[in-house]
Amino acid sequence: MKIIDRIKKQEEKNKKQKKFEAFFSFEFFPPKTTTRIESLYEKIERLIELYPLYIDVTWGAGGSTSEKTLEIATKTQKFLGIETMLHLTCSNMTKEKVDKALSQAKQNGIQNILALRGDPPQGDKEFKAIDSSFQHAIDLVKYIKSSYGDYFGIAVAGYPEGHSEAKSYEEDLQHLKEKVDAGGDFIITQMFFDTNIFLKFVQDCRNIGITCPIIPGIMIVADYAGFKKMADFTKMSVQKEITDKLEKIKDDKVAVTNFGVEVAIDMCKKLINSEVPGLHFYTLNRDNVTKILEGLELIQNCRSRREYPWRKSAHPKRKDENVRPIFWKNNSQGYIHLTDDWEYFPKHFWNTKVQKQQYKEITEDYLKKFYRIEKYEKDLPESINSTEDVSKFFVDYYEGKKDFLPWTLKPLGIGNLIIKEKLLLLSKLGLFVINSQPRINEALSTDDAVGFGGFGGFIYQKRYIEFFISLEKMNILFKYMDQFPNITYHAVNHDGTKIFTNNPENQTTTVCWGAFGCGEIKQPLIVDPICFQTVWKNESFGIWTNVFGQHYQKDSTSFKILQDIHDNYFLMNIIDHDFVTPSQVGRSVWRLFLLLEKELSNENENENENEKQI
Amino acid sequence: MKIIDRIKKQEEKNKKQKKFEAFFSFEFFPPKTTTRIESLYEKIERLIELYPLYIDVTWGAGGSTSEKTLEIATKTQKFLGIETMLHLTCSNMTKEKVDKALSQAKQNGIQNILALRGDPPQGDKEFKAIDSSFQHAIDLVKYIKSSYGDYFGIAVAGYPEGHSEAKSYEEDLQHLKEKVDAGGDFIITQMFFDTNIFLKFVQDCRNIGITCPIIPGIMIVADYAGFKKMADFTKMSVQKEITDKLEKIKDDKVAVTNFGVEVAIDMCKKLINSEVPGLHFYTLNRDNVTKILEGLELIQNCRSRREYPWRKSAHPKRKDENVRPIFWKNNSQGYIHLTDDWEYFPKHFWNTKVQKQQYKEITEDYLKKFYRIEKYEKDLPESINSTEDVSKFFVDYYEGKKDFLPWTLKPLGIGNLIIKEKLLLLSKLGLFVINSQPRINEALSTDDAVGFGGFGGFIYQKRYIEFFISLEKMNILFKYMDQFPNITYHAVNHDGTKIFTNNPENQTTTVCWGAFGCGEIKQPLIVDPICFQTVWKNESFGIWTNVFGQHYQKDSTSFKILQDIHDNYFLMNIIDHDFVTPSQVGRSVWRLFLLLEKELSNENENENENEKQI
Repeated sequence: MKIIDRIKKQEEKNKKQKKFEAFFSFEFFPPKTTTRIESLYEKIERLIELYPLYIDVTWGAGGSTSEKTLEIATKTQKFLGIETMLHLTCSNMTKEKVDKALSQAKQNGIQNILALRGDPPQGDKEFKAIDSSFQHAIDLVKYIKSSYGDYFGIAVAGYPEGHSEAKSYEEDLQHLKEKVDAGGDFIITQMFFDTNIFLKFVQDCRNIGITCPIIPGIMIVADYAGFKKMADFTKMSVQKEITDKLEKIKDDKVAVTNFGVEVAIDMCKKLINSEVPGLHFYTLNRDNVTKILEGLELIQNCRSRREYPWRKSAHPKRKDENVRPIFWKNNSQGYIHLTDDWEYFPKHFWNTKVQKQQYKEITEDYLKKFYRIEKYEKDLPESINSTEDVSKFFVDYYEGKKDFLPWTLKPLGIGNLIIKEKLLLLSKLGLFVINSQPRINEALSTDDAVGFGGFGGFIYQKRYIEFFISLEKMNILFKYMDQFPNITYHAVNHDGTKIFTNNPENQTTTVCWGAFGCGEIKQPLIVDPICFQTVWKNESFGIWTNVFGQHYQKDSTSFKILQDIHDNYFLMNIIDHDFVTPSQVGRSVWRLFLLLEKELSNENENENENEKQI
Repeated sequence: MKIIDRIKKQEEKNKKQKKFEAFFSFEFFPPKTTTRIESLYEKIERLIELYPLYIDVTWGAGGSTSEKTLEIATKTQKFLGIETMLHLTCSNMTKEKVDKALSQAKQNGIQNILALRGDPPQGDKEFKAIDSSFQHAIDLVKYIKSSYGDYFGIAVAGYPEGHSEAKSYEEDLQHLKEKVDAGGDFIITQMFFDTNIFLKFVQDCRNIGITCPIIPGIMIVADYAGFKKMADFTKMSVQKEITDKLEKIKDDKVAVTNFGVEVAIDMCKKLINSEVPGLHFYTLNRDNVTKILEGLELIQNCRSRREYPWRKSAHPKRKDENVRPIFWKNNSQGYIHLTDDWEYFPKHFWNTKVQKQQYKEITEDYLKKFYRIEKYEKDLPESINSTEDVSKFFVDYYEGKKDFLPWTLKPLGIGNLIIKEKLLLLSKLGLFVINSQPRINEALSTDDAVGFGGFGGFIYQKRYIEFFISLEKMNILFKYMDQFPNITYHAVNHDGTKIFTNNPENQTTTVCWGAFGCGEIKQPLIVDPICFQTVWKNESFGIWTNVFGQHYQKDSTSFKILQDIHDNYFLMNIIDHDFVTPSQVGRSVWRLFLLLEKELSNENENENENEKQI
C-alpha cells in the first residue's frame, strides 16, 4: 500500500475520532555484516510491535550496501509484514542499477520509494553524477513515474534549512515544489533541532503552493561524536543550550543517550501540538526510540491493533489474505515463502480451490533457512541416548527451563500459558507437542493473549494439539476415541504411507474465529487435513533430521535416535470441537490423555510386578 | 440431486451409525382446480417438514393435467426446496410433448423422472400408443438416456404381482430387468397389501440379476369406494381379513380411515424389519401419512434436520448456496424468484461479487404473486382512519390476536416469541416492525426455535429489528444513537433519495452463524446494506400500496393513509452487535426504544400542559 494512502487513512481516522493522533515511522540503515543484519531483524521485529505506520531502509552511499538494502526491505515488507519504503539515490548510480533496484522492489511487493539524489561517495567532497540523465532527485521522480506509472508511492526529501549545496533557501524550496509537482506524494525532512525552523519551513512550503503532507525527520542523539559529525555535515542550527549541555556531558555515554531522548521528546511534543501528521525517526538502528514513544504516550495496546492472530505480509498481492493454516503459527515467514507463487490467497474461508494450490517443496535449504537453530545450539542436549532424553528436552521447554524447540524457536507463547501444565503432562508421557492452543470462549478481541481485530469483538478458539507419538501410544488413544464424539484427529507417518483419521472427507475446520461489529465472522486459523498430510508433514518431520539432527554427527547415537523417531513416530493433531464446556466438566480432549497416562502407569506396574516375579 | 444418490447416502449413514433407518417419500397428484392446488401446496409445505427423502407428482393420464404436474413440481423443487420426481408417461404422448416436458423439467432444476408407459385414457380399455416409438416404458428410459445423458435420475415401476397386461409374472420380471439395464436407477413398486408378495418379488428380482434398490409403494386406504376401484383395476391380492373388515365398516368413514392407517403401519413395520431401504406412500393428497409415520416413530426432531435457518432450493444450480439476506426471512420463495438469473450463488460468505448481482425487478405482479393476502383479507382492518389504526393492526399482530401482517403472511415465528413484548412496545410507539430476531448466544444447534445444521453445534444471532418509522421519531432515535456504539443502522425512504446510516462503507454483517464440529463457521444470514437500500426497499415499501393498499378503494381515506406512510416513512433496520450481554444489562438496542418511549410521553405531557394553559 502506498504510504500516502496510509497517511490519508490516519487523517480520516483522526477526523472521525475527533481526536488528533500523530503516526510515527522508523528509519534503518543496512549493516555491513551478516551477524549485525540478523540482530537488526530482531530489533525490527520488536520495534514494529509498536505499530509504526511504515519503516524505511537507507540506500548505501555509492550503492556499497545497496544489495543489503533490498534484502532487508524485502524481508520486512514481505515476511515481517511492515510497509517498507526503499531509499533510492540516482546520481551515484547507472540507469541499469536504478532499473534493477526498482524492478526487484516491485517484484517483492515494495510500493514506496524515497527518491534522493544521493551524497557524494565518502572521501569525495564535490558532487559528480554518474549518469547525466540523473543529476537531481527530480530526475528520479520523473523516471519512476514514466516507467512505473502509479505503481510506486514516492516520498521526497525537504531541507528545513535549505540543502547545503543549494544557492539559496528560496531556490531550494522551489526545487522541492518541482519534485512534488513531478510526483512526490509527501515530504520527509532532513533532521533539525529547532522546531521553529521546521514550522517556518512548513509555512514557506504552503505559501508557494506545496500542499502535500510534510513529515519532520527526528534525529535521536545517542553519541557525541556522531552528533558532531552530522551537525557539521548538514550545517544545521542547533540551539546553544543543546550544544552546551552536550559539551558538558560528552564523555558520559549514558547521560548523552538520556539527554538525546529528552531533547527528542521535547521536540516531538512541540511538533504534535502543532499537529504534524507524523514523526519520522532516524533510529540509527538503535531502539531508544521506544523510550521516546513511551514519553509521548504513543504506544497503544498492541493486541487491539493486531489485525489477525498472525502477521500479515505487506506484499500487495496478499493484501486481502485473511485465513491461514494453524501449522505455521510459529513460522509465518516459512508459510509466506512456501505460498509465494500462489495466484489466489484465501479470503474469508479456506476452500477446495486453496486445497489444490501447490506449495513450494520442503527442501533441506528451506528448513535451514527458516529454522535457524544456530544461536540456540547451546540449549540443545549435548547427546541423546534414548527417547527419554528427547522427552526430557520437551519437558524442560514446557517447564519454562528452555526457550525454544527446533519447531518453535521461541518460548511458549502467551496464548498457551494457561495450558502449560497440560502440555507438560503430554511431554512426560513421551508425546512431543510442537503446536497447540487452548479453548477460548468469548474472550474480548482486545485480550492480551488471544485478542485480534480491534475493539468490540469476541474471540473463540477450539483446543488444538499437535504432537509426535509412537504407534503403541497412538493405539491406546484410539481405544478410547469412541468416548469423545467432540474430537477430530489426523495422524500421518513420515512418508505418508500410513494415515489415520476420523475425518475421511478431509473437511477443513476453523479453529480460531471472531465476531465483530459490522462485517462477517472472521476465521483466520484453520486445519486443512490435506495440507497437514503433505507439506506440513514434510516440514515437521524434516526438522527431526535436518534441523535438530544437524547438531549431531550422522553416525552418532543421538542422530540415530532422532532418525528413529522420524522413521517410526506419527505426527498427530487433535481438534476438540467443544469450545464451550470447561475442561473440568465433560469430555474434553485432556481427559483422553489422562486415560493414556493411567494405562501407561498400569503397564509400568505390571512390568514391575513381572520383574518382582522374576 | 438424483434420488439414487440420496438413497445411497442414506445407506452410508445407516452403515456409519450401525443402525438401520428407512427413508420415506410421498406421492401427490395434480388437482384440477386452482383452489385445490393452493391447498395442496399448504399440505405439501406441512408434509415436507417431516423430511421425506423426496416427493413425486403424477402425470395426468393422457396429459390432461400434465401442465399442472410441471407447475407443481417446479414449485416444490425450486421454491419449497424438496427433491421432486416427475412422473412421465410416453405411450399417450407425442414425442414433442415428451421433449417439452423433459426440457422444462431440466430448466426448473428437476432431476428425477419416473418413466412410465401410461394407462389408457379413461373409458378406453385397450391400450394404443400415440407415437409408435413409445410403446413401452423402456422406450422412454432409453430416450431420456440418449437425449439427456446422465442429467436425469430415472426410476421405473415394478409390479409385485405382475402387470395386469403382461403375459406372465416371469415375462414381466424380465421386462423390469430390461428397464433397469436400460438406465433405471431404482424401482418403485405398484401398491400391494400382502408384504410376503412384495418380499418374494424382491427375491425374484435378485435372482434374475436386478441389483438396484426396490422401494415398496404403500397405498393408504382412506375410503372404501376408492379402495375397491383400485383393487379391481390392478387385480392385486388383498388378504381376506382386510376385505372382510372393510366390508363391515365401509359406511363409517372415520373407521375406514383409522383402519387404513392401522393396516399401513402393520405393513410398514414388516417391511422395515426386512430392511427395505425406504417406503413410498401414495398419499392421494391426504395427510394421514403423518399418523403412519408417527406410528412407525419415523418423525425425528425436525430442527436438527434443518440445514440452514431458511429452506434451501432443490434446484441443482443452488446446491451449494449457504448464505442469504435476512430481509426475505418470511418470503423465501420471493427471494428465490428474484435471484433466479444469478450465475453465482454465495457460499460461506456474502461478498462484493454478490452485492453486484442483479435482482429481478419488484413489479406489481411479483408482489401480488408472492404476497397473496386474499385468504387473510377478512383479518385486515375494514377501514383505516389514522396511522393509529395501522399501529393498532401491528399491536394486534404482536399480541397474537392476528395471524398475519401483509409482510409476513404468517403468525410470529417461534424464533421471535421471546421478544414479543418488546416488539409490542415498538408497535405501540408507532414503529411498524416487519422483521426481527432476538440475540442468541451459544444455543444448541438442535434448539427448537433457532437450531439448524445438525447435532453438536452452537448457534449465535445478533439482535435485528426492521421497521417503518416517521422522520420525527427517527430523529429522536438519532439523538441517542451516540450512546450505543454497539449498534449499526440503515434507513431509507421509498424512492431512495434519503439514506441515513452509520455504516458508510456499506459493510455486510453476519447476523446468524453457527460453529459445528468439522468444518468452517456457517454464516447463513447477513444484512447487505446495498440490497436493503434498493431491491428490499422496493419490495417492502411496495407492500404498503400494492398489497395492503389493494384491499381499499384508491380514493378512500384508508388507501390515502397507507399511501402517506409509503411516501413519508423510512424503512429502518438496526443490528445490535453485542450478542453476549443480556438485555437487562448495558446498552442493548431495547434501551434505545425505552428512551424514545420516554421522550414521546414527555411530549404528550407537554402537549397536555399546553392544552391546560389554553
